[in-house]
Amino acid sequence: MYELLRSVLLDPFAIMNSVGLVAFALVGAAKAIREEFDLFGITVVGLVTAFVGGATRDVLVGRIPLALSSMGEITLGMVGVSLAVALHLVLESPDDHPITVVSDAIGLAAFTTAGAIVAVETGVSSFGVVAIATINAVGGGAFADILLDRSPFILVTDFYASCAVLGGTTYWLLAVAFGAGSVAAALCAAVTVGTRLYAVRFGLHLPTAQSVGAAVDGRFGNGSK
Amino acid sequence: MYELLRSVLLDPFAIMNSVGLVAFALVGAAKAIREEFDLFGITVVGLVTAFVGGATRDVLVGRIPLALSSMGEITLGMVGVSLAVALHLVLESPDDHPITVVSDAIGLAAFTTAGAIVAVETGVSSFGVVAIATINAVGGGAFADILLDRSPFILVTDFYASCAVLGGTTYWLLAVAFGAGSVAAALCAAVTVGTRLYAVRFGLHLPTAQSVGAAVDGRFGNGSK
Amino acid sequence: MYELLRSVLLDPFAIMNSVGLVAFALVGAAKAIREEFDLFGITVVGLVTAFVGGATRDVLVGRIPLALSSMGEITLGMVGVSLAVALHLVLESPDDHPITVVSDAIGLAAFTTAGAIVAVETGVSSFGVVAIATINAVGGGAFADILLDRSPFILVTDFYASCAVLGGTTYWLLAVAFGAGSVAAALCAAVTVGTRLYAVRFGLHLPTAQSVGAAVDGRFGNGSK
Repeated sequence: MYELLRSVLLDPFAIMNSVGLVAFALVGAAKAIREEFDLFGITVVGLVTAFVGGATRDVLVGRIPLALSSMGEITLGMVGVSLAVALHLVLESPDDHPITVVSDAIGLAAFTTAGAIVAVETGVSSFGVVAIATINAVGGGAFADILLDRSPFILVTDFYASCAVLGGTTYWLLAVAFGAGSVAAALCAAVTVGTRLYAVRFGLHLPTAQSVGAAVDGRFGNGSK
Repeated sequence: MYELLRSVLLDPFAIMNSVGLVAFALVGAAKAIREEFDLFGITVVGLVTAFVGGATRDVLVGRIPLALSSMGEITLGMVGVSLAVALHLVLESPDDHPITVVSDAIGLAAFTTAGAIVAVETGVSSFGVVAIATINAVGGGAFADILLDRSPFILVTDFYASCAVLGGTTYWLLAVAFGAGSVAAALCAAVTVGTRLYAVRFGLHLPTAQSVGAAVDGRFGNGSK
Repeated sequence: MYELLRSVLLDPFAIMNSVGLVAFALVGAAKAIREEFDLFGITVVGLVTAFVGGATRDVLVGRIPLALSSMGEITLGMVGVSLAVALHLVLESPDDHPITVVSDAIGLAAFTTAGAIVAVETGVSSFGVVAIATINAVGGGAFADILLDRSPFILVTDFYASCAVLGGTTYWLLAVAFGAGSVAAALCAAVTVGTRLYAVRFGLHLPTAQSVGAAVDGRFGNGSK
């Protein structure tokens, strides 16, 4: 037990993966509670949100998903689901509560880092590292949205997936410059959670093609009229 | 031919997989007929419903999907699609007909068992066995629903996926206690089809977090008011 | 550089895959521009449309997706996205423009051929070749539609996926009869793009089960009335 705990604390992947599993299972289950699903449905949405991103990562790099082979993953997932049910018994609407919003940002950062670590180990391209980090971070929530028949596109448009892209890029740059490890992992997580919480607080938006078109028209188009 | 038939009859996976393919292709095609799709669309929905669960199972355990390498799978799938078209020519609305409802329960049970057999052979965790059995059973119908832009969540909330979870758990318990084999397969299928038909007949529901909250309030909350 | 170009020009898979990546990234990005997504969202929809079909093909045949390991894929994808943004600055609505419609037909044909080539190399069944060719061709667009919460079923009902099925069947027949190679690839692409453009021009439809039922009634049912 002590050995296990020690190996987890010294392994950046294990730390990030564990944090992400609890945080995203909580977020997914809270979403299902708001939809008034039964306890089985709450558990399924919680576990899907926690597991699908990592399982997709593992399938893409040619491994059997960790969630299917390790009992640690399902244990941490059930902890997250139980926390969401407990929060519901204490709070009014856990889905909108700051605890859930912060959990979501933490889960996003933790899974971005876990995905980037696995991708760099596997030896994919720089784009592959950023893509796998982002899929690991966003895949579970997107799949849960698809199951719930909601457009997962809010994840792309709402400065959410872009935080994972920034974090994954950070990890890749640091891994190339100084080597993969705890420092790269900590900075990747910090960039992701920082940009996400900043975006939630200040409502960041990226330019659209329409606004680029308007800017181009404004600069070059006026003279000819 | 005789050898082939004999080997199928002695192989629980082959029996369950064959039954599931015909049953789910029929169910999927019947759904597409009700939506007035063309014959190509009917075939695609039938085959997707029959193949996607098993293909996902195979990808998760690191194998090339059986449906892509064996001609037996597509033959059985086309039998199911043809049965659905034949039923449509005879019956009014094959989608709601008891034949389709019973086929669906049989397909659910057969694919739960096929998934549990493969998962135990692969050597995943106990949760992995239940998860793969459930994905094998529910994956095809859920993916067909996503293609048809319907929420597949009815599969989770309507005591449907829970039958596969019960069946998969049964198989895992029996495999641990007495070893995997025909008896475990038969009991897994019986539990799944039995609970599913019971749920259809009597409209079973599971408790929601709201009802748990109400029960907790009722027991502990009243005294303080 | 010269060597690289030469090896691409002599490799049917590399040609078809490159053409498909640019064409589908353009089509996907044009769709996202019409929905007024931000530049990040446009890039994601473009890359998803370009990459998901081939990535699914690679996962199904047990390989790490090319898009994650080769920088060529992301470069070509970004070329397609940039073309879509450039078209938007020049044209009114690039999504409905003939350039986009023709790009889509070319991408469909190129990816059908790329999928058929990989499937024949892998040694799957005849159905496997047609299925993988079709998934390679249609998977990206279907996944983008799911992300955008639109039913991807138009791809099946609108004589779109059926063109990929015809092309894949052509490649398989030619590969069996004369061996896989540039001629089979060229004819596969020609059949797919030809049937698709013909279908767009003349609005082709396939019969439904209802019309088959009506035809059967008309032939056999009238006498008894």
